[in-house]
Amino acid sequence: LSTRIFPVIMSGGSGTRLWPLSTEVRPKQFHALMGAHSLFEETALRLAGTRGNLEFLPPIIVAGESHGELIADSCRAIGVTPSAIVLEPIGRNTAATAALAALTAQAIDPDALVLLMPADHIVSDVAAFAAAVELAADTARTHIVTFGIRPDGPETGYGYIQQGEALANGVHRVAAFKEKPARPEAERMLREGGYTWNSGVFFFNPAVMLDEFAIASADIRDDARRALNSARRDGVSIHLDRDIFGAVRAEPVDIAVMEKTRRAAVVPCSIGWADVGSWAELWRLSEKDAAGNVVLGRGAVHDGTNNLLHGTNGVHVAVAGLSDLVVVATAEAVLIMPRARAQDVKTFIPPKD
Amino acid sequence: LSTRIFPVIMSGGSGTRLWPLSTEVRPKQFHALMGAHSLFEETALRLAGTRGNLEFLPPIIVAGESHGELIADSCRAIGVTPSAIVLEPIGRNTAATAALAALTAQAIDPDALVLLMPADHIVSDVAAFAAAVELAADTARTHIVTFGIRPDGPETGYGYIQQGEALANGVHRVAAFKEKPARPEAERMLREGGYTWNSGVFFFNPAVMLDEFAIASADIRDDARRALNSARRDGVSIHLDRDIFGAVRAEPVDIAVMEKTRRAAVVPCSIGWADVGSWAELWRLSEKDAAGNVVLGRGAVHDGTNNLLHGTNGVHVAVAGLSDLVVVATAEAVLIMPRARAQDVKTFIPPKD
Repeated sequence: LSTRIFPVIMSGGSGTRLWPLSTEVRPKQFHALMGAHSLFEETALRLAGTRGNLEFLPPIIVAGESHGELIADSCRAIGVTPSAIVLEPIGRNTAATAALAALTAQAIDPDALVLLMPADHIVSDVAAFAAAVELAADTARTHIVTFGIRPDGPETGYGYIQQGEALANGVHRVAAFKEKPARPEAERMLREGGYTWNSGVFFFNPAVMLDEFAIASADIRDDARRALNSARRDGVSIHLDRDIFGAVRAEPVDIAVMEKTRRAAVVPCSIGWADVGSWAELWRLSEKDAAGNVVLGRGAVHDGTNNLLHGTNGVHVAVAGLSDLVVVATAEAVLIMPRARAQDVKTFIPPKD
Repeated sequence: LSTRIFPVIMSGGSGTRLWPLSTEVRPKQFHALMGAHSLFEETALRLAGTRGNLEFLPPIIVAGESHGELIADSCRAIGVTPSAIVLEPIGRNTAATAALAALTAQAIDPDALVLLMPADHIVSDVAAFAAAVELAADTARTHIVTFGIRPDGPETGYGYIQQGEALANGVHRVAAFKEKPARPEAERMLREGGYTWNSGVFFFNPAVMLDEFAIASADIRDDARRALNSARRDGVSIHLDRDIFGAVRAEPVDIAVMEKTRRAAVVPCSIGWADVGSWAELWRLSEKDAAGNVVLGRGAVHDGTNNLLHGTNGVHVAVAGLSDLVVVATAEAVLIMPRARAQDVKTFIPPKD
């Protein structure tokens, strides 16, 4: 008997640290950062059809209402017909999104599991990811499974998951979630072992997720249900009402559910995962030429090393006699800064006209 | 009795050292470098109507055939109706252009003088320029007058003119033209005095100019005449035939005529003249903010000094934590280099697709 799974794509991020490429109008997930497809498209293409005894159903998408057209265009471009597109007129954080995902999946196929994935992450080893999903499928009937990325350094930009007792082969109970740590704390966890990075991917039986909301966040689940029940439906698109959905309490699912539930599980895995949160990180993750330069789009470096160039719309980026820079050029703006300043991007965004 | 003068605008330069703003399709003279108008428009607006006893006739324009539309648009934008627009299907250097200018002016009004000016220079003190033209008007009936810019440093990027005996108040015979000098030579000339920079502006009676071509370059004059006689005329536009005009010998007027004629004169003057030949020079000439930054178009510098930012098409240029750079952004390309590399621009232009 096969396990049916709804991939649910959460397309709520704004990604302003990747300005000027990523903007409110066209955030990070709708850009190709490291391949031919946008991150959203890669996420939608990642798991589809049948893999072993897993059957991936057409995805459910939860996205901002203003990105409805980008979603439609992206799905058309890759030949994907979603099971449903839930359009949020306003962002209410990931607990609301998880409740919408569980309720929408349950309404279409109550026996299917939900694999909830952010639209803007990179997974370069899809086979390993599919294997981890397969490993976790049984546990996901009774637990909310997270995917814990085996750390390759004392990263301070991610949350950590501490493994508890084994629940099944390769699956552990979560002992604790740790917020983004300071450097010494990150180093201690790496030294001790048994910690992984929280990838923000969740795998669960919608009935279990909805039950677990009852512990401390029943209001979010109930208000999300009310928003779905009152939504305007148009084909697979579900348009939530701004006032009704706007009344849902905004909280990350990590706080609303995961840190409180006793049914959190983790599958430690190595799947080439990355949440590209800055231009410096994109440079670190990208393949470099002999001089350490990364040229995405059209461009060239003359006498310079370890630069990241990112041109869009056919713009040619020429850098001469300079090193360790990030240069990002779009039709609207050009950003030039040392790679070391990549965390400060938000302060360089000009005020709106 | 007033002196009638045809301003003749030579719009032949390509200005690739100001890439990516300046391109073959839209060279330097069709961009606004330091003001609201393009350099071409500023040149066409510079001297018009009556000034004292000088009467400036509608200009004659000599330009590349491929820029006919840019010329027409520019003239329309500033409300100028040219006396003639001579369109060169191929560049044959400035001697051919000077011959075309003299022949065209003579055909329209044989008594008018010609004031031949490159379209891509800056003259910030127009009153001083007009005064110099007035001072030289009598001499220009019998001589080819050049405008010698009083040097403010041992510049090695310009040719120099050595003054000879006085011909009239403020007007000297040219003793010698000196090619762009090495630094010690430039310093020597500055120390000795009696030298000025060759502005490339010529003021003459067309009959005299055409006579002086006879010394060593009669072929250029005769072939240019043949091209004009066989040209297709369309209103004020004169379209030269590619083959016939292409047969004209290509030589700078400085070599073909000026270095050989005994009728060269110079008016030393200070008219705020500049031939903006590089991005570094534009930075040097522009008004700077307290941090030494020049921001042309939209843009901002965060923590950085002495940068030149030039954005076009509404693109916002953001530079952070960097100094002494040139950043030029157009819809087609972005160039980033240290100001000190500004002379190398040509090597950064990508090959055509």
